[in-house]
Amino acid sequence: MTTGSGDSGSGDLARLSLNQETVRQLSLPELCEGLTRLGVPGVGLWREPVQRYGPEAAARLVREHGLTVTSLCRGGFFTAEEPAARRRALDDNRAAVDEAATLGTSTLVLVSGGLPEGPGGKDLEGARERVAEALAELGPYARERGVRLAVEPLHPMYASDRCVVSTLGQALALAERFPAEEVGVVVDTYHLWWDERVPAQIARAGADGRIAAFQVADWVTPLPEGVLLGRGQLGDGAVDLRAFRRAVDAAGYEGAVEVEIFNPALWERDGAEVLRETAERYVRHVLG
Amino acid sequence: MTTGSGDSGSGDLARLSLNQETVRQLSLPELCEGLTRLGVPGVGLWREPVQRYGPEAAARLVREHGLTVTSLCRGGFFTAEEPAARRRALDDNRAAVDEAATLGTSTLVLVSGGLPEGPGGKDLEGARERVAEALAELGPYARERGVRLAVEPLHPMYASDRCVVSTLGQALALAERFPAEEVGVVVDTYHLWWDERVPAQIARAGADGRIAAFQVADWVTPLPEGVLLGRGQLGDGAVDLRAFRRAVDAAGYEGAVEVEIFNPALWERDGAEVLRETAERYVRHVLG
Repeated sequence: MTTGSGDSGSGDLARLSLNQETVRQLSLPELCEGLTRLGVPGVGLWREPVQRYGPEAAARLVREHGLTVTSLCRGGFFTAEEPAARRRALDDNRAAVDEAATLGTSTLVLVSGGLPEGPGGKDLEGARERVAEALAELGPYARERGVRLAVEPLHPMYASDRCVVSTLGQALALAERFPAEEVGVVVDTYHLWWDERVPAQIARAGADGRIAAFQVADWVTPLPEGVLLGRGQLGDGAVDLRAFRRAVDAAGYEGAVEVEIFNPALWERDGAEVLRETAERYVRHVLG
Repeated sequence: MTTGSGDSGSGDLARLSLNQETVRQLSLPELCEGLTRLGVPGVGLWREPVQRYGPEAAARLVREHGLTVTSLCRGGFFTAEEPAARRRALDDNRAAVDEAATLGTSTLVLVSGGLPEGPGGKDLEGARERVAEALAELGPYARERGVRLAVEPLHPMYASDRCVVSTLGQALALAERFPAEEVGVVVDTYHLWWDERVPAQIARAGADGRIAAFQVADWVTPLPEGVLLGRGQLGDGAVDLRAFRRAVDAAGYEGAVEVEIFNPALWERDGAEVLRETAERYVRHVLG
């Protein structure tokens, strides 16, 4: 992994990655420039800004800055029942795999989708099974292109409208039906911190080579309306981030630690200042 | 159990209880009158309105209407670290037990409390252990008064600021350290619907005689700011309420089905109309 060229302690920052939604006020060139200056070697990207910039151009830009793309967010939304909608979702996910391959990242993060409209609208088990069907269809396609599908369990508060995979246990149960080279899981502190089973599940995921990404954000309350944009800056909340990082390390994970915070208060500030603060918070609250 | 004297199908409503916070626009006499008229035999009460009315007077009022108090909400908030705060919490819980006994209900619902301020502010395990210590202290006191402590798992979105007991599995693990006559659990659809382990846990809880209360509300989105007052009227959301009711029945639970919905849209309407609607929704979406 590139260790960056900045003067801000690149040793400490050797595993750090910044997910671009954390500082969405920055353009992709501004983000790359800012990360390089700080000595942050990794960046997590989202499809929409990458598509606007152009995937090839984005790949070139990131490469020229010596950055590694640690993940692309996101594919998924597999739970529709209607055949045409399912076909569209699979097509879109193949496009997401192609974009990940273009960017040179091996990790495509998947948000599985919520309960569907219609007769299956209360059938969590059925929706989870359709996620498995989609993984079966997409796994080989992704593998051929050097990309792994990374099932992200989202906090149970998103189970109805965003992601029927709510725990690391559920994500692993899905992933384990497929080769580890095709399907992994995302460990995100924001979604998993409340679950006492997680340390053992991280160990199991690590032993099986299933940890495709490790993302960090803190849990703060009160939650905002819609509960999407209320993640906390590292150290501001309830999560023992250091314990999480130690658990994934102990499980054998050697990849990036990707900071992904959705919070309008961060977006309103100077982006370079948020980058600096986030790197400092990472060293203080995640490392050590 | 009293089956009520109304003309609205008291057979169907024989197990129904209305938690008073569902229709907080009604005074306690209005609520009792409305339930009796509909033929709803049960009522779930909250400490604050009962204290305002006077526990003895409330007990008399409920008795005169032939109603059964199916639960008293709520004791708990056991997670403080500071000794004086812990003593105050235990004292307050003994008062809650006394009030439950006065009202003639055997079920005191406990909301365990969130993470404390201070050094233990990220220590979920420690906080959960302090809940166990409080149950050990309060259990015999409650049992002597004919009251059982009912540990309610709250949705994981409340884990930091309200209740560190987030799953039925955690609640059972706590309860099982004590005699079933002292500590039971609350099964509330709103908090548990997303968890695939719940059917098996309900069976285990029923076999051990641990189901102290069964509460129903639906899950609707978007969640409001603070996520406290966004519960859905029965049938409006994602929860398969009938499957839950069948599961608790199959587990041997024969107690009340208590509707507990916190939703300002219901509070703005005519309370008698909300009672009628809720009874109809219960028959359509929970029974059958």
